[in-house]
Amino acid sequence: MSDARYMALALSLGRRGWGNTWPNPAVGCVIVRDGRIIGRGWTAPSGRPHAEPQALAQAGEAARGATVYVTLEPCAHHGQTPPCAQALTDAGVARVVVALGDSDERVCGRGVTMLRDAGISVQTGVLEQQARRDHQGFLSRIELGRPMVTLKLANSFDGRIATATGESQWITQAPARRMVHAMRSSHDAVMVGGGTVRADDPSLNVRDLGMTRQPVRVVLSRRLDLPLNCKLAQTAADIPLLICHGATAPVALIDAWKGLGATLLPCAVQGSQLDLADVLQRLGTYGLTRVFSEGGSAVAASLLQADLVDHLVGFSAGLMIGAEGLPAIGAMGLARLAQAQRYDLEETMAVGPDVFNRWVRTRN
Amino acid sequence: MSDARYMALALSLGRRGWGNTWPNPAVGCVIVRDGRIIGRGWTAPSGRPHAEPQALAQAGEAARGATVYVTLEPCAHHGQTPPCAQALTDAGVARVVVALGDSDERVCGRGVTMLRDAGISVQTGVLEQQARRDHQGFLSRIELGRPMVTLKLANSFDGRIATATGESQWITQAPARRMVHAMRSSHDAVMVGGGTVRADDPSLNVRDLGMTRQPVRVVLSRRLDLPLNCKLAQTAADIPLLICHGATAPVALIDAWKGLGATLLPCAVQGSQLDLADVLQRLGTYGLTRVFSEGGSAVAASLLQADLVDHLVGFSAGLMIGAEGLPAIGAMGLARLAQAQRYDLEETMAVGPDVFNRWVRTRN
Repeated sequence: MSDARYMALALSLGRRGWGNTWPNPAVGCVIVRDGRIIGRGWTAPSGRPHAEPQALAQAGEAARGATVYVTLEPCAHHGQTPPCAQALTDAGVARVVVALGDSDERVCGRGVTMLRDAGISVQTGVLEQQARRDHQGFLSRIELGRPMVTLKLANSFDGRIATATGESQWITQAPARRMVHAMRSSHDAVMVGGGTVRADDPSLNVRDLGMTRQPVRVVLSRRLDLPLNCKLAQTAADIPLLICHGATAPVALIDAWKGLGATLLPCAVQGSQLDLADVLQRLGTYGLTRVFSEGGSAVAASLLQADLVDHLVGFSAGLMIGAEGLPAIGAMGLARLAQAQRYDLEETMAVGPDVFNRWVRTRN
Repeated sequence: MSDARYMALALSLGRRGWGNTWPNPAVGCVIVRDGRIIGRGWTAPSGRPHAEPQALAQAGEAARGATVYVTLEPCAHHGQTPPCAQALTDAGVARVVVALGDSDERVCGRGVTMLRDAGISVQTGVLEQQARRDHQGFLSRIELGRPMVTLKLANSFDGRIATATGESQWITQAPARRMVHAMRSSHDAVMVGGGTVRADDPSLNVRDLGMTRQPVRVVLSRRLDLPLNCKLAQTAADIPLLICHGATAPVALIDAWKGLGATLLPCAVQGSQLDLADVLQRLGTYGLTRVFSEGGSAVAASLLQADLVDHLVGFSAGLMIGAEGLPAIGAMGLARLAQAQRYDLEETMAVGPDVFNRWVRTRN
């Protein structure tokens, strides 16, 4: 097998960690000797241990003289554990193939240097584009200070998420909803606006997929005007609940939500809404790398308007609601078509009776 | 090859006539002897000659003892030409396989009877479901008195067909627009509302596909308030233009449009709009079997509200316009989600940078 094939395997292992390793990257590692895979590893939940020592432990003595495929440059800094570059050197591996140089400034280039100084042959850039995509959340947090954002919309054929009277259950069907739960589980956090909490009283957890760990729930509520008996409140002690609010939110409500077990993040306000650029910076500081936004329409419009959406996921059902219905995306103040941010189609397919499609922000 | 394989070929030949044979059905015919295809035919433009005599002419003397596959029951009535059932008998064929019994009351069952009376073995119902779909326009006109209606929508990711200022060119890209032209050519007529004519001044013709014949253009305009210098007016002498209007449309305008070469169809009015059920009945009387509606949003909403849409075709582009944009489907007065007519997904795929999907009205 070629380097690219082994690296593709390492990348697929790394993706198993999506949603589980924040603030650390979800890395994958494969160790090969004489054409046999002798070790596989991926970053453990919460980020430790890293992928490389797990793969090395599997390989044992056989690692001596082997080739190691790792999706991100091995760490070179002494943190909670010895650096992976040191562990690879100690194991006596002959060659290390790296998909993507780490942009974390504590590491940047030093892992590769450390390996080369130890006489190990190092090759970088194998499947780098794919690795950049797989590590986009981690890179976004390091480079932009904010998590990667996936915006999900599930709407009628004509782009409505509810009838005029607010009825929204169910537009899309069970297979699409199941897929949404799987997507939640591959993100660090699920984010909605306060309006969605008031209208739908969602749990925002991952159901029916045998998950033990749940993504963080993030609610945007400038004035903290959320029902204190909503499902999110009832489960705040068990599943992390972050509430982003404005500075003028009543202290009594701040205290009440803290008492329920929520974490409160005061954020900047722009006009009558939370400043979503600031919200995302604060979520980045908190450690989140992959955020899954499920609306509502005002949050969707504000995220798009501020060009903060990296991936779009759409589900469309084969029914029409008509113009009185609630739009999936609120007012955006778009003057000209040429100003609209475009997204590139990555995938479209049927999911049960609904259409699923996935888009990525067009790089200009 | 099995009967079904030959019939599938006959059906594919029949579909070549879509848009060209109205008010006649677009039939396909294959003649087989000793495992060799010796004749193929499909209904000629305008409906004559039929598929069977063309296939028989190809087969010549070899038709004696052959098996004939035909997608619709051969005609038994003496119209402009002798009945096809007679022609098949005269040619001495041994066996006739029919996909779908004709529901035209002049024929119904008599073609098969005529063949059997002549000692020919007849089998019916081979690929009947597919044939029913292929002949849906013809069947709709016979059974419901109206053409089959395909509603096309081309919109932004959030279901908008134009910005607040009316800018709509271009949301979807060239490959999608090319596909729309191909779809126009497979329908008897292209239909839009007067608002679309005023806003976009469309030609509604088929371009860049080497077509010689153009579909009929149908415009819905209760008050006939269309620009007399629009592109449709300029071409009315060359490409059929039907205008459906209300009884109170000014006589001077009726005369002006007649003078330009348009055909005027007075239709019933319901409230402040044309009664689309009546409009479609009149288009059926005119002879149309397959109508392709391209909006605008009021026509789309009215068609859907009156449950007159058989097929939905959607194109979605990867850009957002926001809630101020013009919705693809206007107000529908839907009270409950359960009342929304659902459509079954038939196909979804990428067409250039856009998503294409096709739906058919759910049979309850």
